[in-house]
Amino acid sequence: MTSPSATQDRYPYQNEPIWSRSEKAIARTAFDAALKRELHEVIQEAKQMASQIKEPADLWDLEHYLTQRRREIDRKYDYRYSELTHVFGRLLHEKRLREEEVRGLGKDKLKSIRSIANFLAEDAA
Amino acid sequence: MTSPSATQDRYPYQNEPIWSRSEKAIARTAFDAALKRELHEVIQEAKQMASQIKEPADLWDLEHYLTQRRREIDRKYDYRYSELTHVFGRLLHEKRLREEEVRGLGKDKLKSIRSIANFLAEDAA
Repeated sequence: MTSPSATQDRYPYQNEPIWSRSEKAIARTAFDAALKRELHEVIQEAKQMASQIKEPADLWDLEHYLTQRRREIDRKYDYRYSELTHVFGRLLHEKRLREEEVRGLGKDKLKSIRSIANFLAEDAA
Repeated sequence: MTSPSATQDRYPYQNEPIWSRSEKAIARTAFDAALKRELHEVIQEAKQMASQIKEPADLWDLEHYLTQRRREIDRKYDYRYSELTHVFGRLLHEKRLREEEVRGLGKDKLKSIRSIANFLAEDAA
């Protein structure tokens, strides 16, 4: 069976940019650094919350906070080349990534990253 | 339709002891005190774990610990009169309840509580 969209489906990644070896190295370093900073933030916040626990409700608030943050981080840090410009765009918007950290990526990718960051900034405004 | 067990099913609680008003008051106080102590323990442990977090893995260990303890406490502290002697038996076995805290309950109930505590002690040995 051949549906009208079969030709498109056959090459789902045909429009995706190719990542060179040096781009992959830059991406990996930037990704890991942002993830490390975000995890460090969660650690600091968890320590702070724990130190202020007085009631059992505070305990379950901490559990809830950790579960939410773990899920959010799992979703956000998606290291697939098909997703990376979106990931970096979001991180740039959230100020978890500085532009100089992705310097060296191709112009098309930087444009895409900035465009996603700008879109998210407008969306939030 | 009448099944052979219909007569038994009709009175599922017929063998359960009745709790007098004074027994209910004793039970409530003992139950709340044990729960409070156990929650206090979890709070102390969570503060301790949080203060020692170094790696992200320690963070998720804390989340896992909190989730497990919350579920365990939810299951254990079942304030239904049909369950209370089991609950107190377990708490006695775990040394989360002292016998004098349930003093004033009927002899049948105390016997049942001790018997469950002994069973759990033998089971653990």
